[in-house]
Amino acid sequence: MSVGEHVTIREVSLRDGLQIEAPIPLSAKLALLEAIVATGVREIEATAFVSPSKVPALADAAALAAELPRFRESHGVEFSALVAGPGGAHRAVAAGMGSIEYVVSAADGHSQANVGRSTAVSTDLIADIARIAHDGGASVEVIVATAWDCPFDGPTDPGRVLDVVTAAAEIGADRIAIADTIGTATPGRVSTLVGLLGPIVGDLPFGAHFHDTRGAGLASAYAAVTAGIRRLDASAGGLGGCPFAPGASGNIATEDLVYLLRDSDIGTDVDLPAAIRAADVARTVVGHDLPSALLRAGDRILG
Amino acid sequence: MSVGEHVTIREVSLRDGLQIEAPIPLSAKLALLEAIVATGVREIEATAFVSPSKVPALADAAALAAELPRFRESHGVEFSALVAGPGGAHRAVAAGMGSIEYVVSAADGHSQANVGRSTAVSTDLIADIARIAHDGGASVEVIVATAWDCPFDGPTDPGRVLDVVTAAAEIGADRIAIADTIGTATPGRVSTLVGLLGPIVGDLPFGAHFHDTRGAGLASAYAAVTAGIRRLDASAGGLGGCPFAPGASGNIATEDLVYLLRDSDIGTDVDLPAAIRAADVARTVVGHDLPSALLRAGDRILG
Repeated sequence: MSVGEHVTIREVSLRDGLQIEAPIPLSAKLALLEAIVATGVREIEATAFVSPSKVPALADAAALAAELPRFRESHGVEFSALVAGPGGAHRAVAAGMGSIEYVVSAADGHSQANVGRSTAVSTDLIADIARIAHDGGASVEVIVATAWDCPFDGPTDPGRVLDVVTAAAEIGADRIAIADTIGTATPGRVSTLVGLLGPIVGDLPFGAHFHDTRGAGLASAYAAVTAGIRRLDASAGGLGGCPFAPGASGNIATEDLVYLLRDSDIGTDVDLPAAIRAADVARTVVGHDLPSALLRAGDRILG
Repeated sequence: MSVGEHVTIREVSLRDGLQIEAPIPLSAKLALLEAIVATGVREIEATAFVSPSKVPALADAAALAAELPRFRESHGVEFSALVAGPGGAHRAVAAGMGSIEYVVSAADGHSQANVGRSTAVSTDLIADIARIAHDGGASVEVIVATAWDCPFDGPTDPGRVLDVVTAAAEIGADRIAIADTIGTATPGRVSTLVGLLGPIVGDLPFGAHFHDTRGAGLASAYAAVTAGIRRLDASAGGLGGCPFAPGASGNIATEDLVYLLRDSDIGTDVDLPAAIRAADVARTVVGHDLPSALLRAGDRILG
């Protein structure tokens, strides 16, 4: 890694951040979206087209999608939506989403719990999802969940992640990402896995997604960048807590990540003061405190 | 950095952790000390010999020091005490401390606020402190505070840190450390400063001290290890908050650091389950929640 590198941050507070929160009105989501767009971020995960009964907080996916074209036109932001299968992909494309994220869990235990399918079956569906996305003029990103550990199966064999990534690259995914779904990754394991997958991912855009459940989220993100990753998910305020560890395990906070990268001479699209303001809006719309460090401590004191 | 490296963790909860807390009884400190010793840690910063009116929480320094020989004998732990000048060094040696930490702020603003002396005057005192320590059979470590930023002067010129480290090495310090006093360091700046200082420190043990005020504490600690540092300060539970950012800016938590290092194939002397128990004791003795991630989330789930 050399000074002057650039990392693309994808803001995920509207999807991963809100998905386990009590549902908030569309107007509140749009207020958060306004604040996020003002940070300069170029990519936003806006919602998920999944079962409204399973994820009531994102049941308004189509209504939210209808609001996105004006932000796309005014700010040139690219919006994505997560899907769990072909049905969601069809709905996302129909709603005008230009970018689809399809999640495949590398661990069977999490895959079964999450979507009721094995990793192999979910991997076979990549071709269908890609066809649906591409036919609808959308790009498709394959996100490999439980890339390091599974809450049911324990440590994930890196070979299983490699298999999913290999399939995704061969089938025609436009982007690939690996996700630390339960917030257990650490820098050493991140370096190892990114190094293993890099040659398979090749020239495709390659991203990573971390949670800060065990304090190592930012360290893992920085290790990913050091190992060659140039795309990171992050969430305003660190929104995205886990029900069994309140206040402690959100996504890595966008503003904390931007601070760390800026001071390590790595550029992002995100303006730090605007990101701190967006974190404040995130805190307001959900109505509780968030794990963000910068939201409490602010930028470093300059004499 | 290669797999199998070892990092020495110094537990600082009894000094840096407690110094801004309301004073707790000696018996509570001993309960915490018992829990810390049980983790297997080899070095403990036990207290500070400073003004009791400025730091009432550590006013019992001599009484605590009198309790340490039995732990030293039973567990082979090395205890250190922080001092701010020759008077404290004399008292620490008289109390039987085998290792003295002398702090020199690299920034004049912090140095004046902290001890009423300039960096240059504090640097000149290293020789006196070293003589007092060595005459008393103790070793002396010079800790350079505000090594990255000063709350009064802004960013610290790395040349000022280099000057203090050079003087410390020439005068006969037994160990040298750099401290991120206000929790602003980030991995890139850590790598740069450690790389600059490494040749001056040479073969002397070289440590680093981080706070997690802006979320980058563990990432900075890992960057320090990657750059060659093999000694890190950490505090049970992340004890050591800052009065103007409650709950968010303690020292890096021992258990979170041990988790990160273990999973990055870097050994420490500390047993992780015992460290989590010590963090729980730390929380109990101060009577409020602590920023530790592992204390909430536990070790990662193993299948």
